[in-house]
Amino acid sequence: VSSSPSLVPSTTADLLPSASPSPAAIAAALEDWNREMPAASVSIDPDVLRALSRDYAPLCPAGTPAALIRPSSTDEVSTALRIAHRHRIPVVPQGARTGMSGGANALDGCLLLSLERMKRILAIDTLEQTGTVQPGVVNAEFSRAVAEQGLFYPPDPSSWEFSTLGGNAATNAGGLCCVKYGVTADFVRALEVVLADGTVIRTGRSTAKGVAGYDLTRLFTGSEGTLGVITELTLSLRPAAQAPLTAVAFFPRLGAAGAAVTSFMAGGARPSLLELMDRTSIEVVSGYRDFGFPQGTEAALIAQSDAGPQAAREDLARFAECAETQDGEVVIADDPAEGRLLLEARRSVGFATERLGAFLSEDVCVPRARLVELVEGFQGIAAEYRLTTTCCGHAGDGNMHPTLVFDPDDADEVDRAHRAFDRVMELGLGLGGTITGEHGVGVLKREWLARELGPDSLRLQHGLKALFDPTGILNPGKVLTVRQP
Amino acid sequence: VSSSPSLVPSTTADLLPSASPSPAAIAAALEDWNREMPAASVSIDPDVLRALSRDYAPLCPAGTPAALIRPSSTDEVSTALRIAHRHRIPVVPQGARTGMSGGANALDGCLLLSLERMKRILAIDTLEQTGTVQPGVVNAEFSRAVAEQGLFYPPDPSSWEFSTLGGNAATNAGGLCCVKYGVTADFVRALEVVLADGTVIRTGRSTAKGVAGYDLTRLFTGSEGTLGVITELTLSLRPAAQAPLTAVAFFPRLGAAGAAVTSFMAGGARPSLLELMDRTSIEVVSGYRDFGFPQGTEAALIAQSDAGPQAAREDLARFAECAETQDGEVVIADDPAEGRLLLEARRSVGFATERLGAFLSEDVCVPRARLVELVEGFQGIAAEYRLTTTCCGHAGDGNMHPTLVFDPDDADEVDRAHRAFDRVMELGLGLGGTITGEHGVGVLKREWLARELGPDSLRLQHGLKALFDPTGILNPGKVLTVRQP
Repeated sequence: VSSSPSLVPSTTADLLPSASPSPAAIAAALEDWNREMPAASVSIDPDVLRALSRDYAPLCPAGTPAALIRPSSTDEVSTALRIAHRHRIPVVPQGARTGMSGGANALDGCLLLSLERMKRILAIDTLEQTGTVQPGVVNAEFSRAVAEQGLFYPPDPSSWEFSTLGGNAATNAGGLCCVKYGVTADFVRALEVVLADGTVIRTGRSTAKGVAGYDLTRLFTGSEGTLGVITELTLSLRPAAQAPLTAVAFFPRLGAAGAAVTSFMAGGARPSLLELMDRTSIEVVSGYRDFGFPQGTEAALIAQSDAGPQAAREDLARFAECAETQDGEVVIADDPAEGRLLLEARRSVGFATERLGAFLSEDVCVPRARLVELVEGFQGIAAEYRLTTTCCGHAGDGNMHPTLVFDPDDADEVDRAHRAFDRVMELGLGLGGTITGEHGVGVLKREWLARELGPDSLRLQHGLKALFDPTGILNPGKVLTVRQP
Repeated sequence: VSSSPSLVPSTTADLLPSASPSPAAIAAALEDWNREMPAASVSIDPDVLRALSRDYAPLCPAGTPAALIRPSSTDEVSTALRIAHRHRIPVVPQGARTGMSGGANALDGCLLLSLERMKRILAIDTLEQTGTVQPGVVNAEFSRAVAEQGLFYPPDPSSWEFSTLGGNAATNAGGLCCVKYGVTADFVRALEVVLADGTVIRTGRSTAKGVAGYDLTRLFTGSEGTLGVITELTLSLRPAAQAPLTAVAFFPRLGAAGAAVTSFMAGGARPSLLELMDRTSIEVVSGYRDFGFPQGTEAALIAQSDAGPQAAREDLARFAECAETQDGEVVIADDPAEGRLLLEARRSVGFATERLGAFLSEDVCVPRARLVELVEGFQGIAAEYRLTTTCCGHAGDGNMHPTLVFDPDDADEVDRAHRAFDRVMELGLGLGGTITGEHGVGVLKREWLARELGPDSLRLQHGLKALFDPTGILNPGKVLTVRQP
């Protein structure tokens, strides 16, 4: 793999500022942590550390952590960081480790700082329409709790049953209903953040609006633990949405599905969900359960509208028209259970793909007008590199997840996966898109980030990192390379 | 005034980094500007400079500019800044100068950099639902242009007929329909920005989603020209909204109107507008035109819903119920012209207040649960300091504009206005609010910003300023004091 021309780092060597922390520094930090923190929160069990050293990004290198701390409070996070800072131990914050870019992967000699024990919902305010939570609360648990109060927390990454709100904010996670409601950052109103040296600050406001100073909330959101550790979040909510109506369209060609998306959106549609699945995605989920996809389907679109009974029916009628013009066969799911089953099919693609082998999920987002070029271009790349692939994603946003499947023990196939990965990045940028719509940069896309941003913008990014984390202990080597280019 | 205990600066002395630029530095910069830029874009006419030295914030000091440049292109902005940077001339970027906090006020020896000639709408993309504009495009002009294409640009500050999109983004302007649609920042997808030394960068993306690197777009938005100069904006649009339905409620007490707002919003309402006007606001606009407010009204609420014909009627029925419980008298405006007239009444408060004397418009935003305490507290402060006041604002967001009227030639009254201003800030912060919901910090609220943020957060704000503007030429003394505390 080391001979690969890929821009994905293949070892942890260049992730750390210089050398890994010395055994003496680690021993001194451990002594301080054990003295100043509750015994149950610190662990150096190698099995535990190994089990927690990775997120869901298979191509990314991961190092060997020195310790794990699971704090129960902001004070404990502050203490853990203060000590790490004193001894210059790199800190990797972790939520549920469902990220796809290696952002939560361990570094040699690092502290894994898991927020999973900070999982209390602190307040749900129906008048202000906000919820205040600790970072370890699981997205689905919060979404259900606010729904019980007649409120709605839209961000719904595919991992929502497992991923935490702190992790969602740290990566600015997207999801299926972004196409109407926006991404996690659009719902983060205020944060409590522990800085690299243990200082605790609050950002944002408890009010609906506010412009007091530069927007630190938005800067921490999506910074993947490289600027600070989120210890509390105040999230904006909306009143409950109306029950969605669902339609599905089956197409004889992938490009036809893309074309239906562009014509539907260009007509001013506001679907609450618009997802695409290609033939292989359908096959892998159908191997897992019968979701009722007809034989010979090359691509399917799932659309929802929650605009209210009458308006939703009109929305889906327009969707049907756009799909049928592209030879799509449309079914409106009159039974809500049918709609839920279709969504389950879409959400199952990730898990089902896992059964085929190691896989690398892409996350390119392009302008909607270029969607067809993206999905067809990906088909071409997959053929060229002889790889099994799936292609599904948030078509309404132009945010697709072309996924490369490979056998990790087959060096040639791994190499082809690396090369194909780089080609997909190139394709996305060439179409005016971004290398990451919602998965983040992590370790996987640092080199591609530099290409997307260009040198002047990249210099400011490095400046921000140096301002917030002057000693470079916070998740070093993630998002940005350690050394400024 | 200099003996006033107010935290509003009364002279320009402490706005500049050190002394004003020397006459020699100014002369050298002028020579370079005249040589390197089109003759028609540079002016040193004292009358012109004086006319452009202020925005709409009467209590704020303004200095005497050295020159005015009105560039026609990004290249010209870059040249102007490169030369200013070389000679260390402070630069004050200006849009339509409709700001309320002195952010666009001149500094002694500064360059006024007016973006008013960069006023082309570059593109409107119906498929991607975006518009790309130069910064000098007036909000209303853009809003009408996108409406012709079936699209909708929601941000609507009261100044929308005059203020520019560049200024709106630089201040993260709010408006009347924020309560449903959010503020300007929620619609800024990408920017072209000229940095202090003339370097041109692009931030953000042309796609619906994107998480590639720290969010520079959001950092520049609302930074009031202190981090860079915006030369192009890509704005997100929505499909056209449905025609709104309007209701108005007249109340015998101000607190009753506030209570109606909180009960309406706590019920999960999503009005597209929910504005409050107090008795004096009604009186001043009624002196200007008969808007049909009944005698003896102490407060009025204007509510709109654009949820579609049937849903809007239901929304306003719930509004009527909440208002009537508080002894409000409700009228549903069945004629759209009636609705527009009510909005005109609300939008006229600023101009009408101007006829009473100098005025200082506040901009406190509090959690909705504290709205009644805010408006009643303000009434008490106005009485205590014997000042004529108006109180109106975006009640649905808890964002009110308590306004103090005073005779600028009456030193005692000016002093009382200063003291009352500080008391209102204190009141807002004490209620868990922010000192500025949408008007920005400018010169007016720098000291209050420091109090709202606290020292650790303020230190990061100063760090950001130093990172983006290391020589301190960009609108120095605005938002933050020049010297780090």
